[in-house]
Formats: sequence, C-alpha cells, structure tokens
Amino acid sequence: MKSPSLSPRAPSFIALGLGSVMTIPASSANEGMWVPQQATEIGAAMRTDGLEIDPAQLTNLNSAPMNAIVSLGGCSAAFLSPQGLVATNHHCVHGSVQYNSKEGQDYLTNGFLAKTTAEELPAAPGSRIYVIEELRDVTAAMLKGVTAKLSGSDRYALLDTNRKNLIAECEKQPNRRCDVRPYYGGAAYYLQQQLEIQDVRLVYAPAMGIGNFGGETDNWMWPRHTGDFGFYRAYVGPDGSSRPYAKDNIPYKPKSWLKIAKEGLKENDFVMVAGFPGTTNRLRTADEVRFNFAEYEPLWQRLLSDYATQIERFTAHDREAEIRYAAILAGAENYEKKLAGDLVGADAINLDARKTAEEKAFRDWVAADKKRQASYGNAIAALDTLVAENNTASLKGLRLSLINRAQLLDSARVLYRWAKEQEKPNAQRESGFQDRDRNTILERLTRVERRFLPAIDRQLFVAALDEYKKLPAADRFTGFETALDGIGMDRLYADTKLGDTATRLGWMGKSAADFEASNDPFIKLAIALYPDDIAGEAKEKDRSGRTQAARSVYMQGLMAYRKAANIPLYPDANSSLRLTWGKVTGRARDGQIWTSFTTAEGLVAKQTGKGEFNAPKAVIDAINRKDYGRYASPELGTLPVDFMSTVDITNGNSGSSTLNARGEFVGLAFDGTLDGVISDWAYVAERNRTIHVDSRFMLWTMDKIDGAHNLLKEMGVEVSK
Amino acid sequence: MKSPSLSPRAPSFIALGLGSVMTIPASSANEGMWVPQQATEIGAAMRTDGLEIDPAQLTNLNSAPMNAIVSLGGCSAAFLSPQGLVATNHHCVHGSVQYNSKEGQDYLTNGFLAKTTAEELPAAPGSRIYVIEELRDVTAAMLKGVTAKLSGSDRYALLDTNRKNLIAECEKQPNRRCDVRPYYGGAAYYLQQQLEIQDVRLVYAPAMGIGNFGGETDNWMWPRHTGDFGFYRAYVGPDGSSRPYAKDNIPYKPKSWLKIAKEGLKENDFVMVAGFPGTTNRLRTADEVRFNFAEYEPLWQRLLSDYATQIERFTAHDREAEIRYAAILAGAENYEKKLAGDLVGADAINLDARKTAEEKAFRDWVAADKKRQASYGNAIAALDTLVAENNTASLKGLRLSLINRAQLLDSARVLYRWAKEQEKPNAQRESGFQDRDRNTILERLTRVERRFLPAIDRQLFVAALDEYKKLPAADRFTGFETALDGIGMDRLYADTKLGDTATRLGWMGKSAADFEASNDPFIKLAIALYPDDIAGEAKEKDRSGRTQAARSVYMQGLMAYRKAANIPLYPDANSSLRLTWGKVTGRARDGQIWTSFTTAEGLVAKQTGKGEFNAPKAVIDAINRKDYGRYASPELGTLPVDFMSTVDITNGNSGSSTLNARGEFVGLAFDGTLDGVISDWAYVAERNRTIHVDSRFMLWTMDKIDGAHNLLKEMGVEVSK
Repeated sequence: MKSPSLSPRAPSFIALGLGSVMTIPASSANEGMWVPQQATEIGAAMRTDGLEIDPAQLTNLNSAPMNAIVSLGGCSAAFLSPQGLVATNHHCVHGSVQYNSKEGQDYLTNGFLAKTTAEELPAAPGSRIYVIEELRDVTAAMLKGVTAKLSGSDRYALLDTNRKNLIAECEKQPNRRCDVRPYYGGAAYYLQQQLEIQDVRLVYAPAMGIGNFGGETDNWMWPRHTGDFGFYRAYVGPDGSSRPYAKDNIPYKPKSWLKIAKEGLKENDFVMVAGFPGTTNRLRTADEVRFNFAEYEPLWQRLLSDYATQIERFTAHDREAEIRYAAILAGAENYEKKLAGDLVGADAINLDARKTAEEKAFRDWVAADKKRQASYGNAIAALDTLVAENNTASLKGLRLSLINRAQLLDSARVLYRWAKEQEKPNAQRESGFQDRDRNTILERLTRVERRFLPAIDRQLFVAALDEYKKLPAADRFTGFETALDGIGMDRLYADTKLGDTATRLGWMGKSAADFEASNDPFIKLAIALYPDDIAGEAKEKDRSGRTQAARSVYMQGLMAYRKAANIPLYPDANSSLRLTWGKVTGRARDGQIWTSFTTAEGLVAKQTGKGEFNAPKAVIDAINRKDYGRYASPELGTLPVDFMSTVDITNGNSGSSTLNARGEFVGLAFDGTLDGVISDWAYVAERNRTIHVDSRFMLWTMDKIDGAHNLLKEMGVEVSK
Repeated sequence: MKSPSLSPRAPSFIALGLGSVMTIPASSANEGMWVPQQATEIGAAMRTDGLEIDPAQLTNLNSAPMNAIVSLGGCSAAFLSPQGLVATNHHCVHGSVQYNSKEGQDYLTNGFLAKTTAEELPAAPGSRIYVIEELRDVTAAMLKGVTAKLSGSDRYALLDTNRKNLIAECEKQPNRRCDVRPYYGGAAYYLQQQLEIQDVRLVYAPAMGIGNFGGETDNWMWPRHTGDFGFYRAYVGPDGSSRPYAKDNIPYKPKSWLKIAKEGLKENDFVMVAGFPGTTNRLRTADEVRFNFAEYEPLWQRLLSDYATQIERFTAHDREAEIRYAAILAGAENYEKKLAGDLVGADAINLDARKTAEEKAFRDWVAADKKRQASYGNAIAALDTLVAENNTASLKGLRLSLINRAQLLDSARVLYRWAKEQEKPNAQRESGFQDRDRNTILERLTRVERRFLPAIDRQLFVAALDEYKKLPAADRFTGFETALDGIGMDRLYADTKLGDTATRLGWMGKSAADFEASNDPFIKLAIALYPDDIAGEAKEKDRSGRTQAARSVYMQGLMAYRKAANIPLYPDANSSLRLTWGKVTGRARDGQIWTSFTTAEGLVAKQTGKGEFNAPKAVIDAINRKDYGRYASPELGTLPVDFMSTVDITNGNSGSSTLNARGEFVGLAFDGTLDGVISDWAYVAERNRTIHVDSRFMLWTMDKIDGAHNLLKEMGVEVSK
C-alpha cells in the first residue's frame, strides 16, 4: 500500500481521463470506492451493516466527519485535534523522518517526538496538507465546444484548455489547490477544491521498530504487528492564511477533527474509511487487462526488482548511502511486491475469464438493441482499436522512462522544459509547468539533495541504460544517445554542477537560450532529448483525445446498462475523495484461518531483536509485564495491535483514518494483503482485506512507550497514571 | 524436507560420531526420534495418546509393522503389498522419473504408470531398497583397545579399524549392507544390518502437477496441497536373493507389508512414523550452535542461493539443459530455503539463550559434585577447546568443497582415490573405497551422464572458483591451482574424455600409474589435488579422534544428568531407524490458525494452470464434479489432501509411512513448515509440525485420475466402479 506514485510516467493526460477503459463488475459485499455524494445511494446498505449516523451527513464536505479528512498528496490523513494535529501512517511521514535524520541523529531508527510545538521539525520539502472544501460536477464546462468531429489532438487541446480555465478560475481564491479529474473515463468531470497548507511539520513518529515492525518481510502480509502511524501538524500564518514555513507561523485550526473512540472495535463491528485512493482499473476492457498481465506488469516488475537489487548492492556497507537511498529503495521493493501479487492474483481469480465474461454481457446487451447499438456500437469498436495502439506505446514508454533514474537528468529535463514553457503565456503552458506548479518543481529539485550520491547515481544510470538499450534503435532517443556518447560517463558526472542544490535551483527562471549556451553535460543531454520528448507527447495527446472520445461514450453505455440492472456504479479511483465501508472480520481459506485481530503477545513472538523484527526494548518489556493500562480489549483480554476489515481501498488510502459506526477514530488503514492487491483490477469479496493499526495500540505506544502525553492530552485522551 | 544429502562434505568421520556436541533438552510433548528399542520406555505415553497396539511390538524389527519399513538411502519408505511394492514420496522417486525422461517422453511433467510389472522401468543408477533386519549395540566391540592415552589420530585409526571389522564380519552374509553408527556422540555404537535390494524399478509417479503441486512456492509451507507420493518395486533373482537388474528378476516378497487403513484420520487422531531421520544437532554445545548460526549457515545459504541462480541462468530457455539440471537445482533451492528457515527460526526461538541455559544447568550439576567433576570436568574443557578448532576447519571446508561442482573433477578425484586405495589390502582402505563401495562409486560415476552438460558445468565451475578463491592462499589447494592455470578452461573442457560415460567408468580398476601417465586434464587436476586431500584428511582424523574422546565422556555426563532427573534421552538422528509419534493437529498463532487438513477445493483455489500450480485437467474436473467416490472424509465432507501432525521428523524421514493407532497405513510424511525447521537444533512443541499426504488423496488419485487399478488391487483396496 506504500509508494503511491511509482508509476513510470504520470503525464497530465491521465488528469484528463484519457488513457483507460472498463467492464461490468457485479457488486459484491462492501465493494466500492464511492464518491461522497453517492452516500445516499448506498446509505441503506451502510445502515444495515451498522452505521449509526445519518448517511446524508457523509455527503456534506463542510461538516464532520468528512471535513476532518485531508490529503497529503499520495497519502490520506485526518485532523485529530483543534490544533491542526494530523494522524497518518508511519510510511507516509517516513520521508520527513529521513529528511531530518543524518549520521548521529538517526530519527529513522530511534523515532522522533516533539514535546512542544517549538520542537516540531519542518517536514520534507514538498510536504503538503490539503483540506477538502468542495467536489463539484463540471462535466458541462469541460465538454464545452467538444464535438465528435474534432481530431484527437484538437480534442485533447480543447479539454486541456477547458480544464486549465476551470482550475485557474478556482485558484483565483488564495491558497487553494484545485483540480479537475475525469470519472468514468471522461464521461464525467469533477472539480476538487482544497485548501493547501504549505507549512507542514513533523510532530511524532515512533521508532522504526514499531512503525515499520516486520519491514519488507511482513509487508502485504497477515498476521501483522506493525504500528504504522505518525503525526504531522498543519501550520499557517498568524492571520490564519496558508503560507510557506515561517518561524512565527501558528497551528492551523480546522473546522472539524475526529473524536477518539472511547471504546475500541471488536469482531464484526462496522467500520468506514474516507480517503484519497489513487488508481484502480476495474473499468478497463478485457483487452487492456490481458495486455497488462501478459506484458506490461511482468516487465515492470522485473525492472523494479533489478533496481532494488542494484540499490542494495551499490549502497552496501555505507550507512550514509543506505540512508540516502532508503526511501527510493523502500518504494521500489514495495511496488515490486505489489506487482508480483497482482500477477499471481490475476491468475488466482481467473481475471481474464472474469473480465471477458463481464464485457461480453455488456456488449451482448448493447448488441441486442438497435438503439443501443447506434449509441454505443461505434465507440466500442473505436476503443478496441485504440487499446492496441495504447498498449504498444505503454510498453515502449516503460523502458524510455528508465533514463530518469539518473536524478540530475530528470532535474535537467524538468528545468529546460520549464524554460521552454516560460516562453508561452501562463494559460497555454503544459500542465505541470504553469506558475501554479513552480513550488512543486522547486521542491522536487530540492529533494534530490537528500536522496542522491553521484557515485551511486552513476551506477544506477549505467544499469538503467542497459535496459533502455534493449529497445529497437528506432524507438530510442537518437539525439540523447549521440550526446551521451560524445560526453562519456566520466565527464558526465565530473563536469556537472547540477549536483549542487543552489546551482540546480538557480537554473529556475533562466531562459532556454541560457540552457543552450551551457556546458553542463546533463543540461546538454536534456536539450538533446527535448525534440523527442515533444514529438512523443504530441502523439500521446492525439491518442489520448481519441481514447477519451471513445471511452466516455463506452462508459455512458456501461452506466446505462448498470442503471437498467439497478446496480449502482462507482467510478475508478482517481485520487479524489472516496468513501468505503465494511466490517472487522478475518478470512478463512483451506487449511488456514486469519483471525481479525493481532495482539501484543504476537509481536513479542515475532521479535528477534535484529533487522526487521526489532521493536524497542521498552515495548517488549512493557508487553512482558502486561502493562496495558486502559488499552486492552475486553474481548481479546490483551492489547490489540492490528486488525483486518473488508473495506475497499488502494494506494493513496494509506494513512486513512478508520471510523466506527458513530464516525469516531478507531485506527488507521495502512495495507492490504498480497493476494488481495488484485483488487485494483477486480474486487473479490472473499479475498479482499484491509489491514489497520488499532487506535488502542497507537495510544498505548504514545502513553506507555514514548511518553507523548502532550499529544494525548491534545486529542482529549486521558493519560494513564 | 527434500534433498537429504546436500551437505558439502559427508566424510566417513561422521560415521564414527566424531564431529559434534550437545546440551540438555527438556522433553516436550511428542518430542523425540526414538530408537525402536526405547518403545518400552515411551510406551505408556504412546498408549495415553491413543496407541492401540502393544508398544512392545514396536521393538521387534522382525515383525509387522516395523519390518515393513525400509530405507532408500536418504529417503524412507515401506512395503505396501506382498509383491514388494514400496510407497514413498514423489520427491524421493523424482530422480528416477527424471532419469527415464527425455525430450518427447516427459514423465516428469506427465507422470508415469506401469500397468503391468513388465512395464516397470529401472530406477536411477544407485537406487536401493534397504530392508532392516537388525539393530544391535556394539559399543564394547567398537571401543576395544581404545584408551585415554591414544593420540587423536591413533584413536581415530583404532575406531575405524574396529568399525570396518564389525562391518566386514556382518557383510560376510550375502547381500547384506551393514553399518555401525555412533549414538550420543560416540558414547554408544549400534550396528544396523539391512538386506540390500539392488534391482529397484519405478512403478508409478503421478504428474508433477500433483506430486510437486505448489513447487518451491509452497515448499515448507502450509496450507499445502501436494500429492507427494510415488511407488517403487523391489526385485530379486528367481531364487529370491538380491542381485542387480536382470530381465528375469522377480518381485521381492517381504515378510510384512502395511495394511491400508479402511478409515481415514480425523483431527486429534494418534499417528506414528517410523523411518530413517538423517541428522539432527539437538545435543550440540552452545558454542557449536552459536558458530553455526552466526557463521556457518549464513555462508552456506548464500553459496546455495547463488548456485541456484547460476543454474537457472545458465540453463534458461533450453529444455534439455533444464531437465538435466532439474534435480541438482531442486536440491539446491530446497536446502537454501531450509537454511534460511533455520536462521530465522534460531532467532525466533531464542536458540542461543535456550542452549546456553540448558548447558549451564548441566554444567552446574557437574560442578556441584566433586565426583561428577572428576568424571566429566576434563571432557567438558577439552570439548570446548576442540569446538573452536573444528569450527575454523568447517568454514574452510565449505569453500574448498565448491570445486567439486565441476562434476568431472569430482569423478576424477573419486577415480584416482580409488586407484590409490586399491594399493592397500581391502580392510585397510579408507571407508567409502573398499570393495563393498565399488557399486556405489560406479553408480555415482554413471549418474553424471544424465545430469551433466559441458557448457553448463564449465560456467558453474568458473563461478565456484570465484568463491573458492576468496579463501586466503595458504588455505587453498596450491598444486591444483598451478595445474589449472597451466591447462586453462578451454583445454580443460575440450580435451577431457571423462564426459563420455564408458571412458569415465573405464578408469575404475586402472592403476595409479595409469592415471599419472594420463593427459586428461581433469585427471591431472585430481592428481594435483591428492597430496592436499590426504594432508587435510589426516588433520581431520586427528581432530575427530580427539573430539570423540571428549564428546563421548561429555555425553555420558549428560545421560547421567538426565537419568537423575528421570527424563528419557534419545540420541541425535543419524540415519538409523527411529520411531516418533504424535497427533493430527493444526496450529494457532497470533492472528492466524492453521487447520489440520487441506482439501481438494483448496487445491482448485490455488490452481492457476501455469508453472508450479498446474494440476492436470482431470484432477480439476474431478474435483469440480466432486467425484470423490469412497475417499471423502465424513468429518470434512470432502476429499482431504494433506494433513499436519506433531510427529518429530527431519531430513531422511521423507517418504516415511504414517501409521494410525492400529499400525495401518494412513499417509506419507513429506515436509515440515519453514518456521519449524529449526527443530533440527531444538524441538519446540508449539511450532513443530509435520506435513503428510493423506492416503485418501493418494488412493483417489490412483483410482479416479491415473487408473492405477492394478496397484490398488495389489494393495487390497477395492476400486471404485
């Protein structure tokens, strides 16, 4: 569930809904990542499962509990106090802990706690807290002027312009971050408006031996004993408005915050999760699914696995290098494991047959009626043709993206592109390179500082080039290769000044001509790449425009089909706010039963005192003393650590608060199980489980182990004597 | 549980009990690999747990059920019919299935069934069935002439002579294989006499998709759905005496065979297993344990893991090469996984602390009494010193052994050594090179034929040399290196004739002078190695003699200590016949329960139709039809596949028949769980589980899938209509 953003390419096309497809999932128990407005559609089912508050309350983004839910951009989180205290997963604050660690000050290993607000540390550059304010249907505005006659490129351009205009209009309000995302493959668009908190501070992270207990070995596994939680705080200027870090900033006062439940959960209790799931592919066509599992993911998995091995080898026996590359390595390993799970899972649930059957049922329904055929027939045929074209491009793109593993090349490409885009008026610039994107880019350029060592980078780049060169010459970047041959690896790394952060940042704002006059070898490479980058993007835009045209109509057909069957349909996850509910429950399979809770005693049983199973001595001692205070579960007779539920989440939901039937805080979602990751493609009720850290384990750790009494008080929790 | 003989070195010293140590394991439920004669000591406990026959019956090796138990040398097995039909694990007949497979005749993948005895195929060269006849205490004869004054070398030589004499005397009886093994570190010796069946034929092995369903992924795992069974038949001459394969040989008629239970097992039923467990180390000293887990096994594991990767890489995309190296690869992978499990397990059960505490209790008991101190004090001190010396030698030996991965080098060393030993009278030759060993060596030399390809061997040898060369020059084989440098890799493989089986076998019987006149490069290497081999052995013998002197007294002390506490002590496993019992039961841990049976539906749930999860279509179809005939379990309501029990087994027990309370056949032991492999070092009742294939799944497969009605009839099982 970690590393929400390891996709090799996340172009702005995705933001236009122009790259996907779909089928007809039959609804199954607790399936669904629902747009909050759909809470009325699903309210009866939620009530049946135990929800005690009015479902209509969940459609309101301006009242509790929904307005306590925030995004960190890639992770989800929530306010837990009137002083802007934000709870999320340990792996979501991991980058900030790493950012503040160095030799002799190893917060990663030992944990970090600010006993007062004065001790709170700036989070890693680029850290943000986004407070949701509005989610509004803007389909009509997005499709204004769009006709069937437009070419792919023209359609893309118009959608892009409409989208930029909507965003620009929304962002006229100060400190707002607005985005327009496609739903149902671009059959609908919503504008999401968020307050952007720019001063984020690290408040508390338990030791790695708690927050990441079990490490990669236990990742995606059950039974689990990970205390995957950590705390940020949102800061704003003295006048209450959002602004970057400043010493005199003050804690942000949210309109709402979640109450900590006084009673913990037990087996079969109702739970719900609100957060920002990243991407699912449940509405893709059968052909897209087949391609993904036969070609795309197997290659991607292998590339990530090799990458992780390389990082481990190149950084071995060098603690400084290990710390610098820890986050990149963790991301690669985690995603590789997810892909491996995907591949096994697709076989295990017979995904291909399932998708084929679902798709056939929908297409038969279309074919059975002349009118339906007239409405959707052409779109179905067009989409099928486009899928083949998109697939070829995706495979090639995966290998081409590898050269960006050279972090300074990535920086140089971004910098030069920025300079080129600056030549146009702001509104016409490419998404991602407008004025509104300046800070994001600056932080991306700054982050390199802490995650980069030239000697390691060079070895990784050499390895990446080996893979890149497996593409036929015609598919590769000719200009780039010629330039690289001329420079040579030795000079590339010896002569560049981009490794220096001030120099690197100093290029922001220089003109394209300045770049073209530079002798910096990475800048020369970026310039050599530019024509191919632009040509590739133009083709991609055209494909995307055509895909949106076909897929949006295809989706309208699907929606009509589902409406006829009276089964609600939810859109694929797209990083916007969603709601899901379920029950606390384990899982039985042949020869094996997973029970719904793990306990402190199980943690001790796993403890080896080494490597990934190395909880602090204080934890082990307190458990051995059974010093559980008020945090033991009456049903279990001991302290719960983690629990499982049937809620339907994915990447991006990491850190989502888990709420009980009354909307109170009872834990944090942080993972799924490896044989459930296939749920990104199809939800199968008997295998899909979410893993949460129990709030009682969090509070116990804060109270008994780390003495975070200041935070407990702030959250309204009575501290043990 | 597979690959019982992957130890890098299995010198004859081990046969003298000269290389180990020990501590004081407290007995725990179902712990113990008991010598059959101890059945009276443990009989009451067995009766309490449900044994229905007289425990005294189990001490008698000349009556059922014990005389139906046989050894395959590395695996265990049992007679299941009056016609010499022998049941064991699929992975124990795997080598013979591979031996009879070739391109276009893929018995490995498709399985093999002889519908008549005429269709039965010769097993792989070297295959044997050993029928147990006697197990007799020969301690006095072994220690005749042994005094405390002897040097290590002299002590070794005398023990070796006594042992050879005992064996030679026993083997005067035709077709007997006799061995003398040390118990309790050489405090006792038993002679084991077996009838040696030399004509072994492959009768039946189900498809790989049954016999190895789940492959490496599921190996050492639960839940498990592997049908790990296969059948051999013992053949003898028309006069009933053992002889090598001959067309007119006839099936051997055993005195006893196991009856197939009419009723299957259910949860909590009593089960027992008799077989030939290979090696355990439960009586080692704490220092030996520490060394093993801190240094020895971590290195060994890494070497095996690299070896498996190399084999996979070098044989990729070449079905012929893959088949040839399949058995070697499977062995390496399996053992690597076991070692990894060992390492994790040692941490998990706090082995070091456990051993240290146990040892301290024993040593305190010795120290508390002057007389005990006088008896055992010196031995304790001497053993501690020797352990350090032995450890250093073991680590070096592990790397030195790697050069034998060049299969022709291994052959040449064996051949030249044979010639050198031939210069002495038979009785004085080194164990393993006496007349009685001729066939074993011939078969070892023959086996190369099916498992060797020069191009692959060369690459593996080059890789092995890289590791070997990490030893300091002084520890390496100087003569060998000089010779190899002179020859060079190209000539080594181009000029050798040893790759030809007839040529290779033709060297048996030639004189040392013939070898020394040869130009074959592998023979030159073997000759260059010889002086170092002999010098190394001499040192090892001296160490071994001293170790036996110290350890045997140490063990007498331990036996006295245990006797004083009235807790029976069983000796470490040493490939001799042992008995263990337990109950059919699952296992509960925090967050997870393993139930005791898996079922046919669970097999289908794992089926992907690819790779390691690819049961034949007929299996899947029959399960989907629920065509279980009489083989379903009334308690489960479906067909059981595998089950777990608490019986205490290890490597070498693979293929052991599992008996119910009445001594009837109910399945075959074939594996443990990865977190239980640490039981080789310490048995922990709550984690130790054995995995068995249920006889009902075997019979069902034979009846419904493979139509092995001839065999079912022979075993007295009524075939479904």
